[in-house]
Amino acid sequence: MFADSDLTRDRFLDGRLMIWQPKAGYRAAMDPVLLAACCPAEPGQAVLELGCGVGVASLCLGWRVPGVQLVGLELQPDYAALARRNAAENGIALAVHEGDLSRMPAELRAQSFDHVIANPPYFPPGSGTEARDAGRERGQREDTPLSEWIDQGFRRLHPGGWLSVIQNADRLPEILSAIGSKGGATRVLPIAGRVGREAGRVIVQSRKGARTPFRLLPPLVLHAAPEHAADAEDLTEIAQNLLRRGANLRLSS
Amino acid sequence: MFADSDLTRDRFLDGRLMIWQPKAGYRAAMDPVLLAACCPAEPGQAVLELGCGVGVASLCLGWRVPGVQLVGLELQPDYAALARRNAAENGIALAVHEGDLSRMPAELRAQSFDHVIANPPYFPPGSGTEARDAGRERGQREDTPLSEWIDQGFRRLHPGGWLSVIQNADRLPEILSAIGSKGGATRVLPIAGRVGREAGRVIVQSRKGARTPFRLLPPLVLHAAPEHAADAEDLTEIAQNLLRRGANLRLSS
Repeated sequence: MFADSDLTRDRFLDGRLMIWQPKAGYRAAMDPVLLAACCPAEPGQAVLELGCGVGVASLCLGWRVPGVQLVGLELQPDYAALARRNAAENGIALAVHEGDLSRMPAELRAQSFDHVIANPPYFPPGSGTEARDAGRERGQREDTPLSEWIDQGFRRLHPGGWLSVIQNADRLPEILSAIGSKGGATRVLPIAGRVGREAGRVIVQSRKGARTPFRLLPPLVLHAAPEHAADAEDLTEIAQNLLRRGANLRLSS
Repeated sequence: MFADSDLTRDRFLDGRLMIWQPKAGYRAAMDPVLLAACCPAEPGQAVLELGCGVGVASLCLGWRVPGVQLVGLELQPDYAALARRNAAENGIALAVHEGDLSRMPAELRAQSFDHVIANPPYFPPGSGTEARDAGRERGQREDTPLSEWIDQGFRRLHPGGWLSVIQNADRLPEILSAIGSKGGATRVLPIAGRVGREAGRVIVQSRKGARTPFRLLPPLVLHAAPEHAADAEDLTEIAQNLLRRGANLRLSS
């Protein structure tokens, strides 16, 4: 378990959420906030987050959609404990289960959900250099194949429920292949740092059992300046609304 | 065979190419021009177009890249004959073979190419209403599955050669799945009518045998006005360069 001296307490949604994270471990940034912004959950609906870490995506969603029923699954007990602490301190109900998504805990196997959200590790096994910190390594590099995250996500959905995943853009083909015929109405939101740049991330949303066509949406652009300007405030208006004000981003239009 | 009275002679690349097309049949518009613009062929290289129709993509490419060796395969003899006539009248060498790509003619099976380009039919069998004209129906609705176009394209490439395909955006998952591990360095260019709109078409390029990551490029936007303005000239500058001046569009940057 982390000691408080191993942690930082970070502002998300412009301080609307205060989140404890390990200094040296896997640290959440924009991606779980964007994932939460895109999840079309409504009050009263049940949402499962696979690999919830310290709970950023679920808590952002809970902040935006009061009355949503939030459940998280996290492999690493110390991260699960932080997710519970973050939920309690922010006054948002989040039931955190410890376990491995490829051996789904029985109490989650007994439930189905309106939405499943996930921010799976971005790096395939064996790629790049290993993180020195074991927790960061777990958060960044997959043990469980990406296709298994997608498959387990669909299993936990009601028919008509939505799976929402944020991932590195270079893994889009794997995601679409894993969705296969399990989902339809699939839509891809490219996320680009700046106008005219290729997508760094994608959010992929797919509806269990749907048969409507695939759609490739216009990119979400995060920074307004054409080049990186050190320390300059240059988030686009839409990025400010999503990252600072907890706005939602409808992918259906 | 078409009578001249069944044909129109249309300006492509602002009249740099004059193309005979059947009035009632499948009619080329922007898509083959954009396909040609994206093909990174260099002088001296060999290019095969699968389903070349009346030859628009190959001839646009031949106009832009002098010395490229152009070969087309077309199922419908009357379209193949028009492609030959268009090549001759525009002074561009294009060898047109008649045949079915799923039963690749022996003389093409004996060759391999630096590039394969294709603008396959956009509608799966059984979708929508059938075109009254048989030639248009062939050009619009697939007999041969899209995956077979991709597969036959890769078979005809040298190792390291590029496959370039333009298609409806809603079929991107099928295309990526058909590419599978046959190609790498795959890149997707979304083509959007206007800024902020979802992609209507995609150009997908993949390199035979490559292993470098997938990339999702920024969209090519065709029209500058935010809404359709009847008869108003509103092509973006880049679209004007591609469609009127035969410029190339590098997807590698």
